Amino acid sequence: MGKVVAALSMSLDGFVADENDSVSELFGWYQNGAVEVATADPRWVVHVTKESERFLRTTLGEAGALICGRRLFDRTDGWGGRHPAGCPVFVVSHSVPGGWPREDSRTTFYTDAIAALEAARKEAGDRAVSVSTPTLTRQYLDAGLLDEITVSLVPVLLGEGTAFFGAQVVTPVRLSDPEVIESRGVTHLTYRVLR
Amino acid sequence: MGKVVAALSMSLDGFVADENDSVSELFGWYQNGAVEVATADPRWVVHVTKESERFLRTTLGEAGALICGRRLFDRTDGWGGRHPAGCPVFVVSHSVPGGWPREDSRTTFYTDAIAALEAARKEAGDRAVSVSTPTLTRQYLDAGLLDEITVSLVPVLLGEGTAFFGAQVVTPVRLSDPEVIESRGVTHLTYRVLR
Repeated sequence: MGKVVAALSMSLDGFVADENDSVSELFGWYQNGAVEVATADPRWVVHVTKESERFLRTTLGEAGALICGRRLFDRTDGWGGRHPAGCPVFVVSHSVPGGWPREDSRTTFYTDAIAALEAARKEAGDRAVSVSTPTLTRQYLDAGLLDEITVSLVPVLLGEGTAFFGAQVVTPVRLSDPEVIESRGVTHLTYRVLR
Repeated sequence: MGKVVAALSMSLDGFVADENDSVSELFGWYQNGAVEVATADPRWVVHVTKESERFLRTTLGEAGALICGRRLFDRTDGWGGRHPAGCPVFVVSHSVPGGWPREDSRTTFYTDAIAALEAARKEAGDRAVSVSTPTLTRQYLDAGLLDEITVSLVPVLLGEGTAFFGAQVVTPVRLSDPEVIESRGVTHLTYRVLR
């Protein structure tokens, strides 16, 4: 089985979006370098430092499935049916949005977070399942189902917004020392969850 | 004038103490190595990695004054009158605690946070003023008086507790990329506050 990884860009004070649900202060590192990286979404070409490229090629390259919540799905309009990582998307949602599922998209909908993860792991096989939503991250942490946490730590304080982490039921959650990739506008930190 | 630095050990989810006000999950790096470092407090000898020693010698070595709030002062019993960094302590408090000030201690009390900082900077001269309390960090950030933020980032999620950062009035606060010292049980990150 592949690993389950929660990966998000986060401000130093712990937010993955600001109080207006904007990620503009956090995503600058996707466009602050000279190395062009194409994604599976032709509308989204990034230009990063060579350090961030190394980070991105690993994370985009190893993803076999992606899990997100309805809010992120809606905000990105379902990535137009094709996520930049090029892998199937499993959306945890109370209801299936109008117009979905679509025949041209490998996007499926689940009401149960654990069932979504099981399906995503099956789909991903030996590749990683990437979790892109804070609330799901907490649920999988509490259920002992998360293997890694990758924080792209951005040097900014946002004051308020959507927190990456929150009140897990089971604490403390101890992590390994991180693998560190220092870049411009971001420090990529990859931790293993210790059990 | 010396710089003003906020320096604390913080969990990956942003807490400087857990919900029971304990720092035990965060201070392990002070005793997880082979290098003995004496402090100005003879009761407090630390044993750290050589990487953390490099970090500590810089931060302890450059501190010319320390500012804290009443809660930390009370919890440490005023560090017995002598802070491990060996420098004068400026306590921001609505009232002067019983038994203080003491003739054998360079500890003074201020009701106003800005006045305390002015006095501490005067005392420190060209050396740094170290801010050890989250609420004061936020006040000095908002007042544009903080030069650096040093986070000793500990690989643990606490879920709840006392946050290092909080709702600053003036956001976003943009920071430089950090100087990074990777160690065992901690990653030391030093950011400059950009204005």
